[in-house]
Amino acid sequence: MIVRPKLNWFALLLVVRGSVLPRIALRLLGVTLLAVVATLIHGRVLDWKVSLNFVPFSLIGLTLAIFLSFRNSTAYARYWEARTLWGSLLNASRSLAAQALTLPQHPAQPADGTSAHDFILRLCAFAQALRHQLRGTDPAADLARFLPADEVAALLAKTPVTASATTRLLLALHQWVAGHTHAGRLPPAVVPAMLRRLDHLCDALGGCQRIGNTPIPFTYTVIIHRCVYLYCVLLPFGLVDSLGWMTPVIVCFIAYTFLALEALGAELEDPFGIEPNDLALEALAHGIEASVLSMAGELPRTPEPHPVDFVLR
Amino acid sequence: MIVRPKLNWFALLLVVRGSVLPRIALRLLGVTLLAVVATLIHGRVLDWKVSLNFVPFSLIGLTLAIFLSFRNSTAYARYWEARTLWGSLLNASRSLAAQALTLPQHPAQPADGTSAHDFILRLCAFAQALRHQLRGTDPAADLARFLPADEVAALLAKTPVTASATTRLLLALHQWVAGHTHAGRLPPAVVPAMLRRLDHLCDALGGCQRIGNTPIPFTYTVIIHRCVYLYCVLLPFGLVDSLGWMTPVIVCFIAYTFLALEALGAELEDPFGIEPNDLALEALAHGIEASVLSMAGELPRTPEPHPVDFVLR
Amino acid sequence: MIVRPKLNWFALLLVVRGSVLPRIALRLLGVTLLAVVATLIHGRVLDWKVSLNFVPFSLIGLTLAIFLSFRNSTAYARYWEARTLWGSLLNASRSLAAQALTLPQHPAQPADGTSAHDFILRLCAFAQALRHQLRGTDPAADLARFLPADEVAALLAKTPVTASATTRLLLALHQWVAGHTHAGRLPPAVVPAMLRRLDHLCDALGGCQRIGNTPIPFTYTVIIHRCVYLYCVLLPFGLVDSLGWMTPVIVCFIAYTFLALEALGAELEDPFGIEPNDLALEALAHGIEASVLSMAGELPRTPEPHPVDFVLR
Amino acid sequence: MIVRPKLNWFALLLVVRGSVLPRIALRLLGVTLLAVVATLIHGRVLDWKVSLNFVPFSLIGLTLAIFLSFRNSTAYARYWEARTLWGSLLNASRSLAAQALTLPQHPAQPADGTSAHDFILRLCAFAQALRHQLRGTDPAADLARFLPADEVAALLAKTPVTASATTRLLLALHQWVAGHTHAGRLPPAVVPAMLRRLDHLCDALGGCQRIGNTPIPFTYTVIIHRCVYLYCVLLPFGLVDSLGWMTPVIVCFIAYTFLALEALGAELEDPFGIEPNDLALEALAHGIEASVLSMAGELPRTPEPHPVDFVLR
Amino acid sequence: MIVRPKLNWFALLLVVRGSVLPRIALRLLGVTLLAVVATLIHGRVLDWKVSLNFVPFSLIGLTLAIFLSFRNSTAYARYWEARTLWGSLLNASRSLAAQALTLPQHPAQPADGTSAHDFILRLCAFAQALRHQLRGTDPAADLARFLPADEVAALLAKTPVTASATTRLLLALHQWVAGHTHAGRLPPAVVPAMLRRLDHLCDALGGCQRIGNTPIPFTYTVIIHRCVYLYCVLLPFGLVDSLGWMTPVIVCFIAYTFLALEALGAELEDPFGIEPNDLALEALAHGIEASVLSMAGELPRTPEPHPVDFVLR
Repeated sequence: MIVRPKLNWFALLLVVRGSVLPRIALRLLGVTLLAVVATLIHGRVLDWKVSLNFVPFSLIGLTLAIFLSFRNSTAYARYWEARTLWGSLLNASRSLAAQALTLPQHPAQPADGTSAHDFILRLCAFAQALRHQLRGTDPAADLARFLPADEVAALLAKTPVTASATTRLLLALHQWVAGHTHAGRLPPAVVPAMLRRLDHLCDALGGCQRIGNTPIPFTYTVIIHRCVYLYCVLLPFGLVDSLGWMTPVIVCFIAYTFLALEALGAELEDPFGIEPNDLALEALAHGIEASVLSMAGELPRTPEPHPVDFVLR
Repeated sequence: MIVRPKLNWFALLLVVRGSVLPRIALRLLGVTLLAVVATLIHGRVLDWKVSLNFVPFSLIGLTLAIFLSFRNSTAYARYWEARTLWGSLLNASRSLAAQALTLPQHPAQPADGTSAHDFILRLCAFAQALRHQLRGTDPAADLARFLPADEVAALLAKTPVTASATTRLLLALHQWVAGHTHAGRLPPAVVPAMLRRLDHLCDALGGCQRIGNTPIPFTYTVIIHRCVYLYCVLLPFGLVDSLGWMTPVIVCFIAYTFLALEALGAELEDPFGIEPNDLALEALAHGIEASVLSMAGELPRTPEPHPVDFVLR
Repeated sequence: MIVRPKLNWFALLLVVRGSVLPRIALRLLGVTLLAVVATLIHGRVLDWKVSLNFVPFSLIGLTLAIFLSFRNSTAYARYWEARTLWGSLLNASRSLAAQALTLPQHPAQPADGTSAHDFILRLCAFAQALRHQLRGTDPAADLARFLPADEVAALLAKTPVTASATTRLLLALHQWVAGHTHAGRLPPAVVPAMLRRLDHLCDALGGCQRIGNTPIPFTYTVIIHRCVYLYCVLLPFGLVDSLGWMTPVIVCFIAYTFLALEALGAELEDPFGIEPNDLALEALAHGIEASVLSMAGELPRTPEPHPVDFVLR
Repeated sequence: MIVRPKLNWFALLLVVRGSVLPRIALRLLGVTLLAVVATLIHGRVLDWKVSLNFVPFSLIGLTLAIFLSFRNSTAYARYWEARTLWGSLLNASRSLAAQALTLPQHPAQPADGTSAHDFILRLCAFAQALRHQLRGTDPAADLARFLPADEVAALLAKTPVTASATTRLLLALHQWVAGHTHAGRLPPAVVPAMLRRLDHLCDALGGCQRIGNTPIPFTYTVIIHRCVYLYCVLLPFGLVDSLGWMTPVIVCFIAYTFLALEALGAELEDPFGIEPNDLALEALAHGIEASVLSMAGELPRTPEPHPVDFVLR
Repeated sequence: MIVRPKLNWFALLLVVRGSVLPRIALRLLGVTLLAVVATLIHGRVLDWKVSLNFVPFSLIGLTLAIFLSFRNSTAYARYWEARTLWGSLLNASRSLAAQALTLPQHPAQPADGTSAHDFILRLCAFAQALRHQLRGTDPAADLARFLPADEVAALLAKTPVTASATTRLLLALHQWVAGHTHAGRLPPAVVPAMLRRLDHLCDALGGCQRIGNTPIPFTYTVIIHRCVYLYCVLLPFGLVDSLGWMTPVIVCFIAYTFLALEALGAELEDPFGIEPNDLALEALAHGIEASVLSMAGELPRTPEPHPVDFVLR
């Protein structure tokens, strides 16, 4: 996530960071050079005049608009749903922490690993494990901040079966609740309230996996991509007759908006990546940890992430 | 589902797989040939000049845009809702597995078919049965991986009445919960929590059936289809006067976007099919199975599906 | 609902059934004839040239597009919400049937009308009663398939007060649950789970009534209707100068899309009617009945509806 | 709400009632007169030709379309959400009535004001009180139909504190439930089911208040209003050169669509008013009352509202 | 929030307050001056004619429309979601107040801080604390209206750990419920109903934090900003040839709509600010307090906020 710098309207015109300009710069340059060449040769290729005017671009533009607008809003919807799922992870973790701290009749038996504190540490571990799972990184170091070494090893074990650490932590959280119920410390009647919040954890996990492994149908990407480039390549020939030497300026402007829109869509579509506009999973997981540990009167155990070059990851 | 290959911007222009190009190629060729002919005869049919210019296409384009954009986003919404329903199937199965493993007081009585393990096997069978039901294939072989032969036979029996295997499995899952409650192994107070998740299974089943058997109103398909083809057939005559020999190029470009958009919409509209952009039900059902079996310390029983020609089905 | 015939792209161009063409044919013919006349008189009325070109149609088209697109997506949203409500009716009925069959401690006491079977018959009757209520038809014959004659008479009684059969059945379903609870056959703790699903029945009923008796604000219909016809009547005079004898063809094409779009919107707006694109309530109610009765090992009691002329009602 | 008259396509062109025409007639006349004047003077003001053509209107039209389309769909979304909230009020009232009639063990003790009948009367009073609260009218007369005079006085009392009658009725409904629970007539385990439906009443109340006191940001109204009028005033000067004497006709047509769209948006935005297209709160509250009283075998106590001049309020 | 003044259609054209005009006035003036200069020099810069016409603006306009429309509706969706979250805070607070007042068996034990009144005061404090947290202001003075000084100090304490006052109040509310349950005054079976509403408080808190700390991706802002200004700067050169001295008028009109739209989007995007179109958090928090305190027969303790210059904050 880009930490929005405070900029006035003028500085906002010139900012480079947080723009997709660097990524599309080369291709934009290519398109502009093509427009310069088209202007120099007056739209004639080998003595043959490319007979184009603005009409086709106006007609194609309509279809392109449908495609781009759809891609754009769909990608953002995925981004925002992912953010909302992490928000519900925070909400459920907070409720569960409060419930674990208050509902059991004889709480706090730290010896046998069933204290509210143990439960809260597993909530923190769940958020960290989900972050690493979505980004494909190794959670061992972060899990070790919250759990004893043997439990971390068990969570990440690949035998007898492979299972994600998140699934195993979900089971451990259920075991905590069931254990207290069986031990008579939690009245069965309040258990559905805790299970409902555990279901929200489970839904957040499944929702993130859904977004992560089901991209927007690939065919959309292909069609949009082709349309945008074909449009940009043909455009100079359609404008050169009426615009003359302003053609490269206008082509560069139009190509910038199309290419930038396409690049941003591709970035937002997978919100769990580490590109500038992706979600700051590290900060989000830290925020969950800080919030639930503070309820137990403890400081967060992972270091607070700080923006690097205005980008939180 | 098309497994997105890693392609740079240039390769993306040329990729054939994952495009709808093969399917519309013949018709696209037809439209382009028509445009070549129209250019050759300078838009004159039997010495009569077809007096068209770009204006009608600009006016019709507006209506067409409304139709196509609507069809497009509706088809995707159906696709995404179907995916979300399978996601909720995963979430509910995970919660139910965790609950079955932890909540009963004296769990694990494998002898009489009421162990948590039996419950989990029925969850796996439910996902497989739903997959086969939505695609109209025979579930017997896959159900036999999880259930004894006589139970499979009972699930698929057509006498005394025909019922879907999913409905019968749903009833069996309810019976498991009720049986444990009546036997005193599950406090009645926690039962609503399990029933709530069983309701989610039931909602996912009903939701998939709803999408599967209620297409977008047929009349939309008819109107859009006609507009698109009439538009493409008339287009060359409207452009030939101003574009000359560029007419076939532009007509091919515009027709490609319209035909591709229409074909993709038709594919996404029924997300349970086996076309490249449809949902990978086989992989989804396998994922559910792998996740809930791993909670019980077991390996998945169906083979893991692998993409064939970049397509997971 | 139109049962989508399997048609290739060419047959789809010519199909009449399932199109709104028959309904708008006369008006479309009228507009086309007007265009022919306008072309014959070269856009002159009583020696006075109607000075129109394409510009106004381009400007008006924008507003018209807003209106039509809004009407279109709103009508479909109503249609789809209605379908979803019937889906939730199916889901809730299935869950309730499974719960009634499994949860009571000493089930099946057919003598006193409180068996699970009685409950399931009332669920079937509820779906049938809702269908008849939404279409304003007489439910007596269909209710008699499930309930004894005196109960049907009581459901439809107009004294001492008029009440809908659905409301009375809802009350009867609540009484079944409460009766079992008071008799000690159902632990009070599981009752909220059943009441939650009864609430879903109640929400589906209320939701259908909402859609049925609250149309899209009438003023939208009036404005759109006027715009479309005024547009179609003026259009030939705006095109005749530049298109000549192609004017009637183009006007017919454009008018077809506008009139068809408007007619389809009007049809979808009230999804409970019996027009071809409306919901197949008869088939939906039959599906609910077949599904819940099959759980009790019974065959459906209403005959299975078959498409007449490709239309299910 | 306008009760849709049955009109064929021709009558729909001429209907005045249910159109916003009367409200915008004067301004529309003004714009048309301006267009006539502009045509008479051939677009020259004091010998200075106003040099306009259609281009600016085409460019501005785009922005205006964004604004109007946004305003339009937002206003309708508010209208429909308000309708849905009243629908959920009906649903929750029905469920609560059925629960109150069936769940208590020894129901019907009319003497001490805790019978199910008393509960149902308070549900009716809640709907009436909400209607009056949203429209700013005096509920005393309608509340007196359901409650004894002293209770009505207490509900509307302004000392020691001012509170809305709806809030006080909500508390009374909670007290009924709690009273039965404390008296042992309602098992505590079923109470969450009733509280859940009471929460829905509470959510409907809060939702209506939210829509009622948070308009669409005022700035939108201001910008749209200005654009529309500026557009209509400049339009004749842009069209007169090419359209000549058709200018007033076209300007009147375009202005009609813009002004009507704006007026309708303003009407729908506040769905609780008493304009023709607003919600028929009186009929909705009556419907709730009729439905829940019929469950108790009683006739509704408020007179059934009938459309006046085709409008239900 | 701007308190909508009652204005007729004419006054609405002239109102300054509630418009974003003051904020964009300087830049709008700049663009208009540029247009005047461009007109004076007939679009020639240093004897070189800037060869532009309306075509590029028509093409760019399409992309710009996609961007602006997306930004516009997304910003409003954030605004309305934030409003809805505060609405759900009101709803949950009302339900919880009613539950706390009615459900405990032997309520009102004011001595030990566990009376329903204590609970309600903490609900008021929660709303105030959330308001201050979202705006980054100091809640101490407002919290002191509801809680004893030592509790306020504890809520705002930064040792041993920093925690938000809202999180700590959430925990206190859970403790109240758990305390009554452990003391036997609240049957465990009704506790899930209260915890469900506490979860809604928690969700409202988390939702507001989500909106507050996750802006619309910064890159959108950058691209839109650049497009709008480049468009406005180039526009006069594209229009001057055909519009002559009307160029500045039209440029000013078009630039006004674009700049106003962009400024309003930026304002709505962060709904918790103190700009005129932002949410009136002070009034909302006061409304929650007034409503729940009135249930306990008490007057609100914070002064009622009044609009200053037609703006509630």
